[in-house]
Amino acid sequence: MKTDMKTHIGHSTPDRVVVRGHDLSRDLIGKRDFVEMLYFLSLKRFPNPAQLRVLNACLVTLMEHGWTPSSIIARMTADSVPEEMQVAMASGVLVMGSVFAGTTEGCARILETGLKRGGDRDAYCRDVVEEHRATKKPVPGFGHPVHKPIDPRVITLLAMADELKLDGGYVPLLKQLSAEVDRQAGKHVTLNATGAMAALLLEIGFPPDIMRGLSVVARAAGLIGHIVEEREAHAARKIWNLAEEHIPYENP
Amino acid sequence: MKTDMKTHIGHSTPDRVVVRGHDLSRDLIGKRDFVEMLYFLSLKRFPNPAQLRVLNACLVTLMEHGWTPSSIIARMTADSVPEEMQVAMASGVLVMGSVFAGTTEGCARILETGLKRGGDRDAYCRDVVEEHRATKKPVPGFGHPVHKPIDPRVITLLAMADELKLDGGYVPLLKQLSAEVDRQAGKHVTLNATGAMAALLLEIGFPPDIMRGLSVVARAAGLIGHIVEEREAHAARKIWNLAEEHIPYENP
Amino acid sequence: MKTDMKTHIGHSTPDRVVVRGHDLSRDLIGKRDFVEMLYFLSLKRFPNPAQLRVLNACLVTLMEHGWTPSSIIARMTADSVPEEMQVAMASGVLVMGSVFAGTTEGCARILETGLKRGGDRDAYCRDVVEEHRATKKPVPGFGHPVHKPIDPRVITLLAMADELKLDGGYVPLLKQLSAEVDRQAGKHVTLNATGAMAALLLEIGFPPDIMRGLSVVARAAGLIGHIVEEREAHAARKIWNLAEEHIPYENP
Amino acid sequence: MKTDMKTHIGHSTPDRVVVRGHDLSRDLIGKRDFVEMLYFLSLKRFPNPAQLRVLNACLVTLMEHGWTPSSIIARMTADSVPEEMQVAMASGVLVMGSVFAGTTEGCARILETGLKRGGDRDAYCRDVVEEHRATKKPVPGFGHPVHKPIDPRVITLLAMADELKLDGGYVPLLKQLSAEVDRQAGKHVTLNATGAMAALLLEIGFPPDIMRGLSVVARAAGLIGHIVEEREAHAARKIWNLAEEHIPYENP
Repeated sequence: MKTDMKTHIGHSTPDRVVVRGHDLSRDLIGKRDFVEMLYFLSLKRFPNPAQLRVLNACLVTLMEHGWTPSSIIARMTADSVPEEMQVAMASGVLVMGSVFAGTTEGCARILETGLKRGGDRDAYCRDVVEEHRATKKPVPGFGHPVHKPIDPRVITLLAMADELKLDGGYVPLLKQLSAEVDRQAGKHVTLNATGAMAALLLEIGFPPDIMRGLSVVARAAGLIGHIVEEREAHAARKIWNLAEEHIPYENP
Repeated sequence: MKTDMKTHIGHSTPDRVVVRGHDLSRDLIGKRDFVEMLYFLSLKRFPNPAQLRVLNACLVTLMEHGWTPSSIIARMTADSVPEEMQVAMASGVLVMGSVFAGTTEGCARILETGLKRGGDRDAYCRDVVEEHRATKKPVPGFGHPVHKPIDPRVITLLAMADELKLDGGYVPLLKQLSAEVDRQAGKHVTLNATGAMAALLLEIGFPPDIMRGLSVVARAAGLIGHIVEEREAHAARKIWNLAEEHIPYENP
Repeated sequence: MKTDMKTHIGHSTPDRVVVRGHDLSRDLIGKRDFVEMLYFLSLKRFPNPAQLRVLNACLVTLMEHGWTPSSIIARMTADSVPEEMQVAMASGVLVMGSVFAGTTEGCARILETGLKRGGDRDAYCRDVVEEHRATKKPVPGFGHPVHKPIDPRVITLLAMADELKLDGGYVPLLKQLSAEVDRQAGKHVTLNATGAMAALLLEIGFPPDIMRGLSVVARAAGLIGHIVEEREAHAARKIWNLAEEHIPYENP
Repeated sequence: MKTDMKTHIGHSTPDRVVVRGHDLSRDLIGKRDFVEMLYFLSLKRFPNPAQLRVLNACLVTLMEHGWTPSSIIARMTADSVPEEMQVAMASGVLVMGSVFAGTTEGCARILETGLKRGGDRDAYCRDVVEEHRATKKPVPGFGHPVHKPIDPRVITLLAMADELKLDGGYVPLLKQLSAEVDRQAGKHVTLNATGAMAALLLEIGFPPDIMRGLSVVARAAGLIGHIVEEREAHAARKIWNLAEEHIPYENP
């Protein structure tokens, strides 16, 4: 165990709060907005204007999707633990696991590996898609139960990448992968928003293994509105009733 | 149970995602930033520029405080559940309960009640402080273990309120309450950041009972950096060792 | 901050694990069952046979209730975070808050206060019921949406109290309170299982402020079966669909 | 989506609670103890006396280990969210992830696979250990930072397996694996309690993929005692102070 361990994140003295070397009260509050700070605290540098726009676009994409396990759980918990709002929000983000929330980072890892190892990108895309098809797993970032043939969020996100002239190579590789997915499937498969965000977040410097953190922040923000609506409308108890009515008990 | 219950938050069709009546891909992604959307989803209207600045200032104030129960817990959980980052973040926000995180809303309720009932504000402040002193509870928003005599964040936050000419009356009432706290204590007591945020968030339209949601979003964002540092530095195991060493077992 | 703080719970040395002064391997594993240990770890003494029977009866009462917010949430989370089973279980117990799970301790506090202050029990019960009626709150431990006029679990639990001749006075006071609830309501109101457990757990020495811990342990155990069924039957996605279908979106 | 989905776990009618076909009030409360019910709800059949003894022994082994991430987190959360005890308990079990709690199921999968595929067990054990050594991963169930050369709990657990004449073959295979671990390491490596529990829980019918559920139930029970001690002794704030003092901030 290292005996002289340090933290480089923050601390307080009587007249200062220091955050990664910056004076919070003098240099950050009122001078930097929340999303700049999110970028700074996560990546240890401030974003340029293009990076900030992309991060905002991805966060806005993630905030709200109506009924999801996340919003259902948050509303049930808000109904049962009304005095401690953070419990409903925490419960609602706990469900953001590998199955639904893991596809952004999964797609990002494929894109990152493809660029890092260089070589023939056609062959790389072919191999990636073949491996997923062999194990009957969807390629992360592809397929959507509702958005067919096109995920409308992807159009906006990729248009932003063009407009900002992001040139890290992730977007072209994603498009190439998308064409190969279609070719092997013998039909068009939706490139979904998690795929587009994977490319955009790589472009602005986020490593795959913290991308889920951004989803959590964005979704937590969206849950506030659900909790407000729950306090007015009590959907949680109706969902409970629906479960009892539509999935009845039967003796084993 | 209402049979025709509706939600007014969001839903998806094949070519659209609708969020509170707005088309997500066409009108929100790239057009509104994350903090505007946080305001909109929470309060059902978009903020004006002053409201947006204040909300950003409050969120930035809340994001990062170095070692706290929140960061310690998130790092311990990240060390033990490395593949599911949302678990560490959820665990780190669960601890934001009535004791530490509840003071913003507690102070806000005092300010809101004071303005709503009208009448003599001197008497109101005197009564509030007396009641708290009688039960030996600190007035929410006052006192700080480190920041004495002045919380440096409060200076910045209240200067912003002046600059933006916020005129809802909450800031003057907070200052009056602060003077009364000092008078009854017979010494200066720090007005802390949670008190200043209570006044500012009321000024921009947030009701007290969702203020904790903002703390959760801000802290969740700050936890990403702690999890990144934990993956490099393994403070969690050192803290575990410190507990074992400094709080040893003794037979009952 | 106390500098010589100790813990009296447990620690390990190379050849021993000590738990509250007992050698785990030599004296506890195989010698004491789980519920004896739960009593011992919570109350610092071992139960007698009657206390052990009562604790088992209360735990068995609490374990399983079919569809509840707890089981719905655990199943949704198990579906989304399949590799980390503890997340589903934790999420399912987070919802056991003041609204549903708090009634046992609420009723227990009423019974404990009534015995401690002595005096006229008729007057005490009358005052308690009047206060609750004045604020339109149900007396904790009374009322049930399904079990009318009698909660079948209460019969079994109170019969056990009789059989074991529990004589701490809590059960008679509960019955007296029940009669007063009926009298002021002008009709019979169900005495529910949380009320009966409040009396029984007080009889065996549990203070009200840790009773919820027992509910958490019992419910956590019950959730294992739900997670097993979810892996086979995927009710979580059906419940999600039901929410979308029966609580549709409408523009605000 | 199946339209006629059923649950086989439980439901309530006005005068009955049914749990997997049994009447809770008439047949279970007072007739079955908590651990029998835990077995029944998890595996859909009641245990025989030997199975019940083994399950109790494993649960008692898991309940309490002094300072762990689990107890530290639960105590910090109990200090900050005092009114909602389930939050501290949930937070304390969330940390029971793949790193620490996953070794029981990892070892169990090795033992289960070894028996299922039949064939040469020497070769199987040799391959398993070689594969782990090749990737520098410990074989799950082996190694311990404190218990050297022998984990005292393992002696008790394996003696119980002998006494009860468990004959499913898992214990002999575990011993064979242990010998092979030692042979390839060129020294004795501790067979730890999670390894012994893996064999015993397989013997009594638990599949590996719900073993973590048992750890959660056992640890949840142990956390009650920590929360009680925290309310008296406030170790959480001391641990926070220790982190600040021993892992100080340094500018990046």
